[in-house]
Amino acid sequence: MEFSELIKTATVEDVLLSRPGVAAVRGTLCITSHHLLLSSCPRGDLELWLLIRNVDAVEKRVSGSSGTITLRCKDLRVLQLEIPGTERCLNVASSIEALSSVDSVMMLYPFFHRPPSLRLQQGWHLAVAERHLQRVAAQTSQWRLSTVNGDFSACPSYPRAVLVPAAVGDEAVARAARFRQGGRFPVLCYFHPKNGTALLRSSQPLTGPNRRRCREDERLLGTILDEGERGFVIDTRSAQAAKQARMGGGGTEPKSCYPQWRRLHRALERGRPLQESFARLAEACGEPAPSMERWLGRLEGSRWLSHVKAALSTACLAAQCLDREGCSVLVHGAEGTDTTLLVTALAQLILDPACRTLEGFQELLEREWIQAGHPFQLRCARSASSHARGKQEAPVFLLFLDCVWQLSRQFPFSLEFGEQLLLTLLDNAYASAYGTFLCNNEKERSLCKVRESTHSLWAWLNQPEERHKYLNPLYSHNPLVIWPSVEPQSIQLWQGFFLRWIRPSQHLDEAWVEIQRLVQGKNSSLQESAGKRLSQPLPEPPAGTENGETGKAGTR
Amino acid sequence: MEFSELIKTATVEDVLLSRPGVAAVRGTLCITSHHLLLSSCPRGDLELWLLIRNVDAVEKRVSGSSGTITLRCKDLRVLQLEIPGTERCLNVASSIEALSSVDSVMMLYPFFHRPPSLRLQQGWHLAVAERHLQRVAAQTSQWRLSTVNGDFSACPSYPRAVLVPAAVGDEAVARAARFRQGGRFPVLCYFHPKNGTALLRSSQPLTGPNRRRCREDERLLGTILDEGERGFVIDTRSAQAAKQARMGGGGTEPKSCYPQWRRLHRALERGRPLQESFARLAEACGEPAPSMERWLGRLEGSRWLSHVKAALSTACLAAQCLDREGCSVLVHGAEGTDTTLLVTALAQLILDPACRTLEGFQELLEREWIQAGHPFQLRCARSASSHARGKQEAPVFLLFLDCVWQLSRQFPFSLEFGEQLLLTLLDNAYASAYGTFLCNNEKERSLCKVRESTHSLWAWLNQPEERHKYLNPLYSHNPLVIWPSVEPQSIQLWQGFFLRWIRPSQHLDEAWVEIQRLVQGKNSSLQESAGKRLSQPLPEPPAGTENGETGKAGTR
Repeated sequence: MEFSELIKTATVEDVLLSRPGVAAVRGTLCITSHHLLLSSCPRGDLELWLLIRNVDAVEKRVSGSSGTITLRCKDLRVLQLEIPGTERCLNVASSIEALSSVDSVMMLYPFFHRPPSLRLQQGWHLAVAERHLQRVAAQTSQWRLSTVNGDFSACPSYPRAVLVPAAVGDEAVARAARFRQGGRFPVLCYFHPKNGTALLRSSQPLTGPNRRRCREDERLLGTILDEGERGFVIDTRSAQAAKQARMGGGGTEPKSCYPQWRRLHRALERGRPLQESFARLAEACGEPAPSMERWLGRLEGSRWLSHVKAALSTACLAAQCLDREGCSVLVHGAEGTDTTLLVTALAQLILDPACRTLEGFQELLEREWIQAGHPFQLRCARSASSHARGKQEAPVFLLFLDCVWQLSRQFPFSLEFGEQLLLTLLDNAYASAYGTFLCNNEKERSLCKVRESTHSLWAWLNQPEERHKYLNPLYSHNPLVIWPSVEPQSIQLWQGFFLRWIRPSQHLDEAWVEIQRLVQGKNSSLQESAGKRLSQPLPEPPAGTENGETGKAGTR
Repeated sequence: MEFSELIKTATVEDVLLSRPGVAAVRGTLCITSHHLLLSSCPRGDLELWLLIRNVDAVEKRVSGSSGTITLRCKDLRVLQLEIPGTERCLNVASSIEALSSVDSVMMLYPFFHRPPSLRLQQGWHLAVAERHLQRVAAQTSQWRLSTVNGDFSACPSYPRAVLVPAAVGDEAVARAARFRQGGRFPVLCYFHPKNGTALLRSSQPLTGPNRRRCREDERLLGTILDEGERGFVIDTRSAQAAKQARMGGGGTEPKSCYPQWRRLHRALERGRPLQESFARLAEACGEPAPSMERWLGRLEGSRWLSHVKAALSTACLAAQCLDREGCSVLVHGAEGTDTTLLVTALAQLILDPACRTLEGFQELLEREWIQAGHPFQLRCARSASSHARGKQEAPVFLLFLDCVWQLSRQFPFSLEFGEQLLLTLLDNAYASAYGTFLCNNEKERSLCKVRESTHSLWAWLNQPEERHKYLNPLYSHNPLVIWPSVEPQSIQLWQGFFLRWIRPSQHLDEAWVEIQRLVQGKNSSLQESAGKRLSQPLPEPPAGTENGETGKAGTR
């Protein structure tokens, strides 16, 4: 396939671009293989530089001699293009439709994007599991690095190396893998140094209708607990759903075979219902001038905040078992790639101060979402407004970031990063110039040579001139567990995401920048008064077209 | 009456005090004429120092040999006292009930409170109208100070001096007063220098069923507009309610008699329904662990946020007429003492940067609420939880402060004061050690010698060691009109007030203090680097019992 075949009309003059809250501009529209550009007419400024992958839905309306295209973006932006000439309008629309739904990963922009400031291969977290083991090994010798999945044969959605109990050999692990859906055998996600408890995750066991057992799986989980110790299995499905899963070959850990483990069911929404909840909320947010009753009714009807509350509550439950009850915890639902990761990642953020730094959070995402095999390509293929919704889309990662935002709001000092990082991550999960969120798991990334042929988002973000945008100026290291309030009265709508393009939070953003400036001013004046000058002042962020419309180059 | 007659039991040992989110303490309970004190047993610390006026409802429950008293405070705090001895419990309860409902103004605590750092008579805004005229006179000579109400005979709820059109004599003003409910003839609240438009307020005209007219009232309003100019009457009742008011002797300005004025109806809730809305919301906020659906349902059912939205929208409408349409505006409902003031005060905050400073805001409150005759004593006699609700209670002032909070959230730079000021004002409106919010109007204050015999809240707040608590560290003068978004998606629950005692916002408060510290650090380091030292460093706020439990002495 050649991109040029998909582009029926590459340039249109005299196009009117309208966006809510911004004055309309007239200019020349260009469609390239990956971008939609609009440069304004009299001044020639670049007014829009949109990654076409960001387009979620294209709506066209033709009347008389011109047409209007409404682009609903995955980041919830809505753009309107008024295009002279009916045919040109239809051509532009179908070009955007075709380019936005290219389904070959290796045709995507990350394989073409070559920012001059970065080298390929820079910033890929290559030894996440090794570094994880290093930290755990400082506390205990109960865990070891297993490369039983070195060729992705034991579990196609796991990375090559994972942490397993030191007492269990690779052969037993491989057998346990065959007893878990998709081969996702129990692995360590977090070792809680305070009382030596472990957080594990897996997929459901394949007990099936005949109550099949697997001695190796039982032994793997048994060896984690000392005699008389108890562990908790947090199943992210209802008891009924878990029972029904047996009919399809899945199931749960029966008490008789896993006597030290006690099961708790906490049903978390996933899949289609979660996607619809997101779509309903996004639609409600975009409704112009509803009454307060209607808005609150739609907010409630979307059930999104209930999902936020449920996710945070379940993560708190896991954290409580580990920290307060002194019990190890295994989390799984069915596939173990969605709500499971939501719970384990949030629990770590609550428990572990190391995950709350900018670096630590990146590593958490890499370990618990990307390498843990959350199927980003499937889940983030479409966003809230696409009518051609597949069965696989679900905003689980958005739900996670929303929960992180709730934490950051309740603990304004404890996370080293701010809302801007969460927004940038979300944008990149749905449409990116970088390879980090491409594909569904490490095996696919390896086949597509993502690491060799695309740039890492982390490399981009961690450049000094980018990095400072994402920092929380109020951050100060908090060694404690941060227990969020999960009462509904404490859960708020994440306006910074859901209303981002509808009611721009310009003033709030400015306040953030001002606090940042104050902190920098304080730090630099402290340094000056100590007779030192910054030898390497932070360079200003690059201005002009490279940064485009919103100044967030990371999302291009 | 002697207070000692009301106190049936003055001291009880071994009382257990419980509050949500705070560990219970055991100690000795003392009831004084105005305060409830509890000092803890082993350490003798003062654990509670509550103004008894703050008690909204007393619930008692006796079982066996002891009893429990639940105190629901006007500031939404809930305290529980476990008291040994049934009789003592009932005595304590009836003492608190009696002391909290003393109805003679001059028996209230402000007439006894004598803080050593203040002089009586300090801080009373004595020449508010004169200063107001001074500012207006710099722009136009169309307005003059009238003392037609010097002896409160024209309008018992107006102050002695008000601003009226220069072209209208006092005799005509007195006649116009007789044509308005309660004598509240149209007066100037704000002159908009940008285009010379005026914001006025009054009560409804007494047209009655026979369409009575008053030439002087017509002339008073007519003289404000030049030939061909148009003004707007914003009636805070629905068109139907305004029409019905004619049956009771009230009404509206008929087009035929006020040809240059166009009427707009914006129905704002008031009175009993507003009080019930507040009570419903406070109850919903206090419900432990509701589901998200139930919480959002109750939030919607309370309709409180609808009232916030409606008040802000109507204020924006008034501001738009003045600023965008270049038209003068008269605001009134029926009595002109509630929703009228809500709209005129908010409109000024939106339009006038001078009202957004700490001083300017105090003057706005003094001019548009206190001296304008908002009946604080009637409206704030009881709060959300009293069962003995009168017909006169209504949280109009709370609604105003909630709207100000919404403004401060949407424009974090533009108000010189922060949430702490709004909370302190609210606390003092309902129960205070100061005389500022006593009585219903200036006439009553004059009769009760409030200025001579009580301290001014402003004097207390403006002491340097108090004042800095209320400042917004991010403030920077914004000369522009601040147009808030009034979309329901932008209106938030004021958690700082409604959840203050339920989910303490400790971390958010700390963040605020940290920003304040940063700003002070920056300012002092700037001064130091210029070779200057602060000659008068701000003294630390006084510690210990004088400041009591919450450190907010202003509310004692």
